[in-house]
Amino acid sequence: MYDPITMKLNVDPYILSALKEDITSEDVTTNSVMPHFCLGEVNLICKEDGIICGLSVFARVFQLLDEKAEVTFFTQDGQAVKAGERLAKVRGDIRVLLSGERTALNYLQRMSGIATYTASVAKLLEGSGIKLLDTRKTTPNNRIFEKYAVRVGSGHNHRYNLTDGVLLKDNHIGAAGGVKEAVQMAKEYAPFVRKIEVEVESLEMAKEAVEAGADIIMLDNMEPEVMREAVEMIAHRAEIEISGNVTRETVQRILDLGVDYVSSGALTHSAPILDISLKNLRPVSEGK
Amino acid sequence: MYDPITMKLNVDPYILSALKEDITSEDVTTNSVMPHFCLGEVNLICKEDGIICGLSVFARVFQLLDEKAEVTFFTQDGQAVKAGERLAKVRGDIRVLLSGERTALNYLQRMSGIATYTASVAKLLEGSGIKLLDTRKTTPNNRIFEKYAVRVGSGHNHRYNLTDGVLLKDNHIGAAGGVKEAVQMAKEYAPFVRKIEVEVESLEMAKEAVEAGADIIMLDNMEPEVMREAVEMIAHRAEIEISGNVTRETVQRILDLGVDYVSSGALTHSAPILDISLKNLRPVSEGK
Amino acid sequence: MYDPITMKLNVDPYILSALKEDITSEDVTTNSVMPHFCLGEVNLICKEDGIICGLSVFARVFQLLDEKAEVTFFTQDGQAVKAGERLAKVRGDIRVLLSGERTALNYLQRMSGIATYTASVAKLLEGSGIKLLDTRKTTPNNRIFEKYAVRVGSGHNHRYNLTDGVLLKDNHIGAAGGVKEAVQMAKEYAPFVRKIEVEVESLEMAKEAVEAGADIIMLDNMEPEVMREAVEMIAHRAEIEISGNVTRETVQRILDLGVDYVSSGALTHSAPILDISLKNLRPVSEGK
Amino acid sequence: MYDPITMKLNVDPYILSALKEDITSEDVTTNSVMPHFCLGEVNLICKEDGIICGLSVFARVFQLLDEKAEVTFFTQDGQAVKAGERLAKVRGDIRVLLSGERTALNYLQRMSGIATYTASVAKLLEGSGIKLLDTRKTTPNNRIFEKYAVRVGSGHNHRYNLTDGVLLKDNHIGAAGGVKEAVQMAKEYAPFVRKIEVEVESLEMAKEAVEAGADIIMLDNMEPEVMREAVEMIAHRAEIEISGNVTRETVQRILDLGVDYVSSGALTHSAPILDISLKNLRPVSEGK
Amino acid sequence: MYDPITMKLNVDPYILSALKEDITSEDVTTNSVMPHFCLGEVNLICKEDGIICGLSVFARVFQLLDEKAEVTFFTQDGQAVKAGERLAKVRGDIRVLLSGERTALNYLQRMSGIATYTASVAKLLEGSGIKLLDTRKTTPNNRIFEKYAVRVGSGHNHRYNLTDGVLLKDNHIGAAGGVKEAVQMAKEYAPFVRKIEVEVESLEMAKEAVEAGADIIMLDNMEPEVMREAVEMIAHRAEIEISGNVTRETVQRILDLGVDYVSSGALTHSAPILDISLKNLRPVSEGK
Amino acid sequence: MYDPITMKLNVDPYILSALKEDITSEDVTTNSVMPHFCLGEVNLICKEDGIICGLSVFARVFQLLDEKAEVTFFTQDGQAVKAGERLAKVRGDIRVLLSGERTALNYLQRMSGIATYTASVAKLLEGSGIKLLDTRKTTPNNRIFEKYAVRVGSGHNHRYNLTDGVLLKDNHIGAAGGVKEAVQMAKEYAPFVRKIEVEVESLEMAKEAVEAGADIIMLDNMEPEVMREAVEMIAHRAEIEISGNVTRETVQRILDLGVDYVSSGALTHSAPILDISLKNLRPVSEGK
Repeated sequence: MYDPITMKLNVDPYILSALKEDITSEDVTTNSVMPHFCLGEVNLICKEDGIICGLSVFARVFQLLDEKAEVTFFTQDGQAVKAGERLAKVRGDIRVLLSGERTALNYLQRMSGIATYTASVAKLLEGSGIKLLDTRKTTPNNRIFEKYAVRVGSGHNHRYNLTDGVLLKDNHIGAAGGVKEAVQMAKEYAPFVRKIEVEVESLEMAKEAVEAGADIIMLDNMEPEVMREAVEMIAHRAEIEISGNVTRETVQRILDLGVDYVSSGALTHSAPILDISLKNLRPVSEGK
Repeated sequence: MYDPITMKLNVDPYILSALKEDITSEDVTTNSVMPHFCLGEVNLICKEDGIICGLSVFARVFQLLDEKAEVTFFTQDGQAVKAGERLAKVRGDIRVLLSGERTALNYLQRMSGIATYTASVAKLLEGSGIKLLDTRKTTPNNRIFEKYAVRVGSGHNHRYNLTDGVLLKDNHIGAAGGVKEAVQMAKEYAPFVRKIEVEVESLEMAKEAVEAGADIIMLDNMEPEVMREAVEMIAHRAEIEISGNVTRETVQRILDLGVDYVSSGALTHSAPILDISLKNLRPVSEGK
Repeated sequence: MYDPITMKLNVDPYILSALKEDITSEDVTTNSVMPHFCLGEVNLICKEDGIICGLSVFARVFQLLDEKAEVTFFTQDGQAVKAGERLAKVRGDIRVLLSGERTALNYLQRMSGIATYTASVAKLLEGSGIKLLDTRKTTPNNRIFEKYAVRVGSGHNHRYNLTDGVLLKDNHIGAAGGVKEAVQMAKEYAPFVRKIEVEVESLEMAKEAVEAGADIIMLDNMEPEVMREAVEMIAHRAEIEISGNVTRETVQRILDLGVDYVSSGALTHSAPILDISLKNLRPVSEGK
Repeated sequence: MYDPITMKLNVDPYILSALKEDITSEDVTTNSVMPHFCLGEVNLICKEDGIICGLSVFARVFQLLDEKAEVTFFTQDGQAVKAGERLAKVRGDIRVLLSGERTALNYLQRMSGIATYTASVAKLLEGSGIKLLDTRKTTPNNRIFEKYAVRVGSGHNHRYNLTDGVLLKDNHIGAAGGVKEAVQMAKEYAPFVRKIEVEVESLEMAKEAVEAGADIIMLDNMEPEVMREAVEMIAHRAEIEISGNVTRETVQRILDLGVDYVSSGALTHSAPILDISLKNLRPVSEGK
Repeated sequence: MYDPITMKLNVDPYILSALKEDITSEDVTTNSVMPHFCLGEVNLICKEDGIICGLSVFARVFQLLDEKAEVTFFTQDGQAVKAGERLAKVRGDIRVLLSGERTALNYLQRMSGIATYTASVAKLLEGSGIKLLDTRKTTPNNRIFEKYAVRVGSGHNHRYNLTDGVLLKDNHIGAAGGVKEAVQMAKEYAPFVRKIEVEVESLEMAKEAVEAGADIIMLDNMEPEVMREAVEMIAHRAEIEISGNVTRETVQRILDLGVDYVSSGALTHSAPILDISLKNLRPVSEGK
Repeated sequence: MYDPITMKLNVDPYILSALKEDITSEDVTTNSVMPHFCLGEVNLICKEDGIICGLSVFARVFQLLDEKAEVTFFTQDGQAVKAGERLAKVRGDIRVLLSGERTALNYLQRMSGIATYTASVAKLLEGSGIKLLDTRKTTPNNRIFEKYAVRVGSGHNHRYNLTDGVLLKDNHIGAAGGVKEAVQMAKEYAPFVRKIEVEVESLEMAKEAVEAGADIIMLDNMEPEVMREAVEMIAHRAEIEISGNVTRETVQRILDLGVDYVSSGALTHSAPILDISLKNLRPVSEGK
């Protein structure tokens, strides 16, 4: 669950923008037939097995439309849920339940889809000591939701964006004139609380990087045997991250490499949603 | 391609927001090693077969960072592209190429993924006279991109949002007191240029809806035989849309029903991305 | 009255912007003489006969400045009010009553002016079966207020904006290569829930439009006898809208034409305001 | 014409907001039939006699949509124009001409309506030495346009908003404990570059105000004979403003009072628009 | 203390922006170790003697993060405070206390620094009848805070910005063609509630300005003896402001000049902060 | 100088906001006397010795008002400048030169003041191998400007904000249950590219922190002899930062401690401005 500060400062603006995307002036259908306040309740039902994620965002959608909307949860983020399970009930102005439904579900389904997929990959890494990382391959304007979902699914976050992490790639190294120079320039320029990570594509580059004092070496798209050599060469002088087309299907081949991290863009860019819906909307009396 | 007005008023704000999500103060890595302007060029290479979509958004990312960035396209939205194909080259300040890369690709990959998936479903409908529709199950703050990608993939758009279309569901009908009343209230309230669509779950409701003067009847999650009866009963007095878990795997069972439209949330909520990347960044001299 | 969702998402931002237009840093006069909280009450008095409209916007102005401000209404939107009638009382921090007064009245007077003028035109159409429509000739950044006022004054809304309705005019038809082509292209391109309207200036164009399958034909600036012929020719195959300099003075000449709609820009662009003011501000004690 | 700084910082944001009000995602009609760029030209034609105002805003609407749009003017703000007169021609992407038309005209018609009405009132004051002032009774979010139009129509501006002027009314005086105290408190509190204006409803209050050192006395809703006495009593010790239901019909009765200013809310809240339209859109070839 | 309207409309947006500057997605440190709500309390302690200013802004920072945060003050804006003095206690979610601390103190320290410095200069003017004024030399995006702090420190505000005051300088006079012309043009153009101030650098210019009817004459960077002559020449026909490198060190040389105002940029651009900190954060139980 | 991406995305919005703070509708003085475009030129003159910083921000202020404004620099950020030196000339619409002057100088003076002060402190550290760091004690909404100025003045940046760095203080450690637990929790939660810094107030805490695997130890407000012991104990197992009331007056006492970093809030919160002004504005002919 988001802490209240993050929610207020950095999550709410995206949710409000999403609501305005769906309601540019009014919900014409609802307003045609429901001119007045009517209290109602509706159930949140899971339609597939998976890991639930995004419940606080789901609730916030309704509460931003009507601060009196109440959401009662029967589960919490990170729990395994089953098809048919009732996850929550929402009570409030029926107009709010109807107008907020789609936006609330669009967030919840996507976040749960990512958590579910991430958990399935993380499970394959259990016992290996390797941490699963996300990337910056997130949906535009959804990073704060997707990075959270990765954590809920037992993954860990790589840098959040280009401002808060240093990752020297090929082209940066070329511009600097070499691995050593690049690492040095980054240490000089970047806020000193940053670790310096270098992406390498060969054993030689890995060697240069570790000798230049890089904190983390990313082995990108290497053949397994080359990775193995690299790990041996690095010999714990830097942390090691593996990257390159890592999916549920391919992750196992790196299990025994003795690396620290593996990152996967698929966690956020290609996880299918988890099917969840609102069911059985009914009017209720205030006193109920 | 977006017309310039839509791009300026309604697409640019999302792209700028996405860029700020990725660069909250500066690209620390790039600025560490590249303190000065250096002209460069990079290729856009497709890594999978598919339908390309979002080229103007891809270009806009760089141009919003630097109006002098030039993108030369070797294909256009809607074309089938092949793994290995060079789709475009981008020329500009190398810092802009590096800092804009991820955001540009995040849009292009997602939009192409949706176009590719949509095209594959639309192809299955060829010859049936049935149009494939999207839904409002889009990624929050990405609807304008995803609805466009559906069109590029030979799909059609359903209503854009809750403001610009009328779709009377179960709960609206209940609130109004019946199908007839709901249709009447919507005709009275909604701007008169709207068609009135009614979602029905039974033959009886379909009958009421068509008799009440609904313009479109949506048959939701019905069994094939019931749909068939409904189509016959409606007898062209209203347009007919089929909905409910329509995917590439399931769409064929409705081919011969004689309906007008089929809508599928999967087009936008579960299409995997199309893998595309920037390759071979190189400095170039101005005169080149 | 606006539903709470529309108010929150789409009305409040305009009201807040209007308040900031009137108070760029502080209300210097009020702050000079009233450094502290003092509870007060003031009456809202009508100074002319008319149709009242915008009471919820009026109240919202004060509540956005101070959520504890209370407005008690003695009437409701759409009611005929008389000069001298007390419409509401507002209770709250006197500083809020003074600083919000002008913005609250600017909205209420304008909205009531439009409702009053619209009602006077709509009355002339009573019994004719013709619905009175507004246009997009609204005051910039006030459309949501003015379209609402038209409805309160017994008018109906035409399309809200360029995104949510199709209206093919002369130039669109020219670009398409003919009426038939234009209607066909619009049916192919526009979200399928849109009706297609065609503006015609001659009998011949009307004929082409109706044969091309237009849902609505707008007869623009035609002579009465030509309109009569057009209505006969169309023979209920499409809905018919009349447009062109329709005012309180001119509307009667179309009463017996047998058309469905008449649209008038004057409703929103030239209605004079209804004079309303706040009177008798007095301090009150909390317990009162 | 707005200076470029005001236009950029304070006018453009309102125009952009108005454009987004009219185009929430795209102009569906235009995009249906005009998928590509086509250069065109259209004439701006006046349909009524009046004073033209807002030409730079009119042009800016198109230029904000497309910086290459060119507007050629045949007149300038403040000129008397005649029905049938060609005021300008606009050249640019036909899609821009069509999509921007309504917003551009909505501004131009309203601003010209205000300038025309203001000029007609100002003319009645000619030779009297009395300056005509506007008020804060402007359309929400349109003050910068309407105050400019008043100036173009030979009126003058009163304070722009609650922040930049001091006007002590009844309630302020009550809160301060008297006229003298209120003036003193305002002199102490308000930025010292402000003049202090006091609204009075009786001869006695006027006397107190002038003795307290008010810079300007506003005689509000007084009978002519009382105003005359007040003017004599004040004896040029302060400037004098007359206010209260001043319109074209009523302004003349104050001509010979020897006051400095008369203010009228009607200038901005009830002026009818000036009818102006775009005519004869035609494609042109680039070289033309 | 800010009135609630100014706070809501014009202060809150800056505070929220400052909070987002410090928390672009989440407070990583706090969230690492405090996943749940925990009620706490902390003291606000002064570490230097000075004039306290900005308490309502300090409180607002916490309340914008969590509306339940409670701040109890033991002093108020404008009071002299001592090193070691407890100024307030803040109670709320410990995460809010930690995440809001820096932003709250950054405002409070700066505002108190300005109030302290201003008070020390104002004290030197006591008995002279000269009012101390600020300038527009404020920190960008902090004017509303800094102008308020000047008032709290017994200074007065000059114009707020370029829109709400007229100050004719050298270049304006040059453009107008002379002092007389400039004053006349300003009287004609500017809203009539503005006083006209003219900056002069010689006795001759001062003479021209006063004869042209300027309301205020600013003697800029003049030698004392020239100022003295100017004051005599002006002979109370206009108010007089002295400006030019006025600091605590230099202000005394103008004490006996008989002028009305002296303005000092140093009040806002070079006052050091007042050292204040949060101390003794402790968890408390709800019932305490 | 800011790279163009940072300028566009993250600097411009602050500058625009500052300009709107100073010009809420128009520059009344300038518009009174300069109704038309007139090309002019003005010199930027330094009035004190110091380190210049913020030239690109200075130029941007004018270019955001008028993209044709040209600024020619005779120095660059980081250079030592002398009183009387001409730093730049600005050419453009005189109205732009006048209206932008104050905002441009407010930025330039403040940034140069910080660079000058920082350089004077950094100089005292020369040869010691200790890097000078800033803090988060920056002026609200000015951090991007002030952190840049620190770098230009030969300082280095500590973390940018609460999101992009981990700094465990007293209260965090208390909440976690101990130094070891806190470090562990931060390593688990925070993006893995972050170094973990721990603030300690005693030798014992320092010991725990280094043993828990902290990357950086901050010795806060310790007595010199304790610091010396701590440095010895840490024995290069972690980097060491000194903090606590570090100013130009106090910094020298830590020169020989053998630490890595010293941080000083005074760099940004109490540096006086550097006096710089625009002089000799003159009209120029286009061809000149």
